[in-house]
Amino acid sequence: MLLRRLLPFLSGLALAPSTALADEGMWTFDNFPSTLVRERYGVAVDGAWLDRVRRGTVRLAGCTASFVSPDGLLLTNHHCVASCLAQNSTRESSLLETGFIAPDRGRELDCPVQIADVLEKLENVTAAVQEATRGLDEQAANERRRQTLTALEATCEQTSLTAGNPLKCEAVTLYGGGQFWLYQYRRYDDVRLVFAPEADIAAFGGDPDNFQFPRWCLDFSLLRAYENGRPAATPQYLTIDFDGPAPDEPVFVAGHPGSTDRQLTVAELRTLRDRILPPALLRASELRGRYSQFGKTDAAANRIVQDALFGLENGLKVERKQLDALLDDALLAAKDAAESDLRKRASRNRALAAGTGDPWTRIAMAQAEEAERWLPYEFLEGGAGFNSRLARHARTLVRAAAERPKPNGERLREFTDGFLPRLEQQLAAPLPIYPELERLTLSFSLERMREWLGPDAAVVRRLLTTETPDALAARLVDGSRLADPAVRLQLWNGGQAAIDASNDPLIVLARDLDAEARELRRWHEDEIEAVVEAAHEDIARARFAVLGTTVYPDATFTLRLNFGTVQGWVENGTPVAPFTKLDRLFERATGQPPFAVPASWRAARATLDPATPFNLSTNNDIVGGNSGSPLIDAAGRIVGLVFDGNIHSISGAYWFDAAKNRTVAVHPAIIREALRKVYRAEPLLAELGASD
Amino acid sequence: MLLRRLLPFLSGLALAPSTALADEGMWTFDNFPSTLVRERYGVAVDGAWLDRVRRGTVRLAGCTASFVSPDGLLLTNHHCVASCLAQNSTRESSLLETGFIAPDRGRELDCPVQIADVLEKLENVTAAVQEATRGLDEQAANERRRQTLTALEATCEQTSLTAGNPLKCEAVTLYGGGQFWLYQYRRYDDVRLVFAPEADIAAFGGDPDNFQFPRWCLDFSLLRAYENGRPAATPQYLTIDFDGPAPDEPVFVAGHPGSTDRQLTVAELRTLRDRILPPALLRASELRGRYSQFGKTDAAANRIVQDALFGLENGLKVERKQLDALLDDALLAAKDAAESDLRKRASRNRALAAGTGDPWTRIAMAQAEEAERWLPYEFLEGGAGFNSRLARHARTLVRAAAERPKPNGERLREFTDGFLPRLEQQLAAPLPIYPELERLTLSFSLERMREWLGPDAAVVRRLLTTETPDALAARLVDGSRLADPAVRLQLWNGGQAAIDASNDPLIVLARDLDAEARELRRWHEDEIEAVVEAAHEDIARARFAVLGTTVYPDATFTLRLNFGTVQGWVENGTPVAPFTKLDRLFERATGQPPFAVPASWRAARATLDPATPFNLSTNNDIVGGNSGSPLIDAAGRIVGLVFDGNIHSISGAYWFDAAKNRTVAVHPAIIREALRKVYRAEPLLAELGASD
Repeated sequence: MLLRRLLPFLSGLALAPSTALADEGMWTFDNFPSTLVRERYGVAVDGAWLDRVRRGTVRLAGCTASFVSPDGLLLTNHHCVASCLAQNSTRESSLLETGFIAPDRGRELDCPVQIADVLEKLENVTAAVQEATRGLDEQAANERRRQTLTALEATCEQTSLTAGNPLKCEAVTLYGGGQFWLYQYRRYDDVRLVFAPEADIAAFGGDPDNFQFPRWCLDFSLLRAYENGRPAATPQYLTIDFDGPAPDEPVFVAGHPGSTDRQLTVAELRTLRDRILPPALLRASELRGRYSQFGKTDAAANRIVQDALFGLENGLKVERKQLDALLDDALLAAKDAAESDLRKRASRNRALAAGTGDPWTRIAMAQAEEAERWLPYEFLEGGAGFNSRLARHARTLVRAAAERPKPNGERLREFTDGFLPRLEQQLAAPLPIYPELERLTLSFSLERMREWLGPDAAVVRRLLTTETPDALAARLVDGSRLADPAVRLQLWNGGQAAIDASNDPLIVLARDLDAEARELRRWHEDEIEAVVEAAHEDIARARFAVLGTTVYPDATFTLRLNFGTVQGWVENGTPVAPFTKLDRLFERATGQPPFAVPASWRAARATLDPATPFNLSTNNDIVGGNSGSPLIDAAGRIVGLVFDGNIHSISGAYWFDAAKNRTVAVHPAIIREALRKVYRAEPLLAELGASD
Repeated sequence: MLLRRLLPFLSGLALAPSTALADEGMWTFDNFPSTLVRERYGVAVDGAWLDRVRRGTVRLAGCTASFVSPDGLLLTNHHCVASCLAQNSTRESSLLETGFIAPDRGRELDCPVQIADVLEKLENVTAAVQEATRGLDEQAANERRRQTLTALEATCEQTSLTAGNPLKCEAVTLYGGGQFWLYQYRRYDDVRLVFAPEADIAAFGGDPDNFQFPRWCLDFSLLRAYENGRPAATPQYLTIDFDGPAPDEPVFVAGHPGSTDRQLTVAELRTLRDRILPPALLRASELRGRYSQFGKTDAAANRIVQDALFGLENGLKVERKQLDALLDDALLAAKDAAESDLRKRASRNRALAAGTGDPWTRIAMAQAEEAERWLPYEFLEGGAGFNSRLARHARTLVRAAAERPKPNGERLREFTDGFLPRLEQQLAAPLPIYPELERLTLSFSLERMREWLGPDAAVVRRLLTTETPDALAARLVDGSRLADPAVRLQLWNGGQAAIDASNDPLIVLARDLDAEARELRRWHEDEIEAVVEAAHEDIARARFAVLGTTVYPDATFTLRLNFGTVQGWVENGTPVAPFTKLDRLFERATGQPPFAVPASWRAARATLDPATPFNLSTNNDIVGGNSGSPLIDAAGRIVGLVFDGNIHSISGAYWFDAAKNRTVAVHPAIIREALRKVYRAEPLLAELGASD
């Protein structure tokens, strides 16, 4: 315990994982530093412990969850089900506003594009991939690597199917190409909504409080995985200790952190700082203004824009603080020093140097080349110019028609067999699409395309010569029938003939743009990605050689485990305590959103214990994608529900600031208190083992 | 000529004005490098030439103009009169859309807050100011300097009044405090609109084409200065050579460049890059989204938001490219090297070093201290939290009541005697104020204040606890009577008693916030500005000692003259020609804004000479504030009307890029062609000396 307390002072700025001085690291389950944890905290994390936690932890679309009952009940965040709530809402009534409690299991609500994946197996295929690409030049290696991984996936799925235990097999690249794995998941594609509180309490404080702490957010919800139309049997579920953890108690976070950039070279970080983040922020800010002004039109507009606005504001705050982090010259200088050190040490190893050459310079040159066509690539192939759900459907359909007839290994990656069921699920989902919102986003992105590519760019001349962005967007959206899932499935199933015959204006547009967009993609894959990936493989080799293998890879939305303790931090000289209590929620409430406590809570207030812990902070190392992760104690019980980081956690994309980077979680006691006294959800309490 | 052609290759990156290798420099009229110009171009710029040009050049509010007839006719940009056009518009009809031609002099339109200033005298008062502040510490010196300059202004105005030739006397700080001057202007405060084309042709290409070249903008308009209700007699007017300049011809720009930051220290540049520009850009982008979505509501909304949106988008583009410039590490490193060099050379001069100490470090420390309270300062005192014309009026009135009774030297600077007539003019002006727009901007800025200061900031708790930003803004705007000039004047004239008695909600708000805002201002003036100004005085001394006096000061919206030649540049290996012609305008037109040619031009098209030159580019060194500047040939005739720079000119805020920084001007031939054939404005053609 003493050691941990010293850490903030020891390593105010711990850079990329040379040695884990701090409670840093998003560790893969095959390489968890159990010895370190035992030595530091006296907690034994053995194979059985790891297996139990792995099988109780679940990957959702962009989030994490955990099984919390033998009947497939899933604990996750409210903000992880916000899209499902929006999808089950209308202009007239929003489940985001009202929350939802399924009256019984038969009336749990379909979340049509949700999935739940449990990692069953991990298989290291590095040797096979390296063997396949040996001796090839960068472009050829890139292509061969892609084909090899696709083939491995396909074989794996076929094998599991034959064995009567069908798994989703996904190729995973770790350490920027230092390792390749097949991660094999049991997938549940029938996931339903069981419970969600009102957004006013789930996201109390809204955007102003987002990434802040102290905090009072009941950011939890319950889903249920179904199998063959019945609740899935999940005997491996994790139990919840509703009393939560003690201060300084060692805790673990299992989950699927989405993406970190701690292994990027300085040239790549500069690219983010100079070329990627500022324009992205400007456009997101402007769209925020559009959304927000649109939402003020009337209550219905406000309802239908809410989910998109939440997501946008969250991303905006993340990118804003990421830019701030990269603008800190001292931190960049430290990265630079670490990189120089690695380069120097790697160059002293003759054999290594002969094999790797100078991958850092190759990356820097690729960045420079990427800059020349980055904007067309981003707007045309990246979709920044056609921000519309309907337009994205159109593009998927047009490309699917061309790709699906090809042999699996020759398709664009996202149309290989492994991805097709998910694509079809998304096309078939009867989600509400609001034309006014589609027009807004499409017109906005067309305007921005004209702004960033310039009015004389060929694509701009072609699209926006006789029509304004507003007029074009209106014609495309109003004339399209792609909001109808039946129409989409017809085009999906009809293949190239159906696409060729379609006169849906969005299909026509996607068809027209496809050749130019594909050429940009080819350029980016061959000239940029191939070079950068090969260089990162070399850097990974150098890093393993110089720093050894007790390191963790950047987050890749694959299962990770990290360790830490319950603790606050010191902000401008003032200690921030690690727990909040219910009493301050009511003191902080203003009656006005985003600080309005919902009626259900006001009604129950007198019955609630004001001393109930609400949220807590820990020093675990997390990032977006960890939302919904279980916070786990030494005994493997859930003692919290991760939903956020503090503001300092955002720079965790690039480095772990041990002094200030904190995870923020919902305390299980407030979940129990709310289910008991506010929502009176007795069956759920019983299922969660929290009945009196 | 040869020399000039070589310049781009000689000095791709010319940093702060050590020696003028390029055609760089915004020179004051007392220190114009006539010898250099004679040597380089064979043009004799003597005292008589300078006097003529100075007296023909006019400062407008934020722009430049020139006298072009003996009857007070002023040539400037359309975008310099956009506010006047908006002020003379209504929800139903916009002069920005229709343009305006006064049928006769009696029907020229009042521009109620426009002024026209002609610089009559420049007086160096450096010695007096330095004498007054000698030996004082930074805070005391800052205060004494302010008082001294105010007193000098007052004496100067009194003297000129007594002499029967009343002048506006303004203290001017040059070289960051290296010199102090009294600039003395003849002011015309009755300025009327004579002619303006439609915005569709004046700003053809709109925001997408802004800061671009080649270009086709008829960005010109005509005002007239009045005196005692009659057109002013302006025998010093400049004549126009409607045939314009030849390629490579030497040309001069006289005008009032607003602000450059070429003398800032690296610490100050980093502050701009890290702390000032990113948040400013984010907020401006979001407001752009708000404005633009609001404008789509209906035609009236579009009309009333247009002027504000244009201004915002222009500023946004400038700040975006400024940030890009500062993100260029190579340029920042060059600044750093230049600064280190100056520091080293200055430290070798013992006497100098003893007198100045280390002003660079003092500035860096002041930046760090400023960061701590910058946000409250910006939102409360800087007004970022209360973006509303009515709220600004309220604040002016509340402060004026407290300040005006004080002795002149003890007032806040903007309430000293010299500024009062202008303040009163603005309060008295019957400008349209649209409540829906006021609510939008006020609510937006309150939201942003909550976002950036955080929901727990005292001022946010005070204002936004029981009301949302929307509700508060609506209550303040709808309840205020300050849109009525009579009400404003009553409070202005009624002094403190009237302010105390007012229950206008915006006055109440301004009263409530005043103490906190003043305390922030006091902190900023005493702890930050005083330190930075004193340090810059020391740096200026070092610079004069080391680099000599053949240098130019940063722009300060005072009269400057620069030289250059008509020329294009090379963009990505492709030469850009310096002239555009009318024919391409019609080829480029799409029929849709912002690329719609107005009906008047379509109707006249057959009569127009397609070979008429339209816009041109030169390598003069300009910046915002130079809009409307006359482009002048060796004979002192107007051969163009500056209205923009190319995209590379924006980094001119920090350094002059001789290879690419270009000025963009309206060619006089297209002005003549338009007045003749499109607008058939015979009397104006006659007055301009352009009759057939």
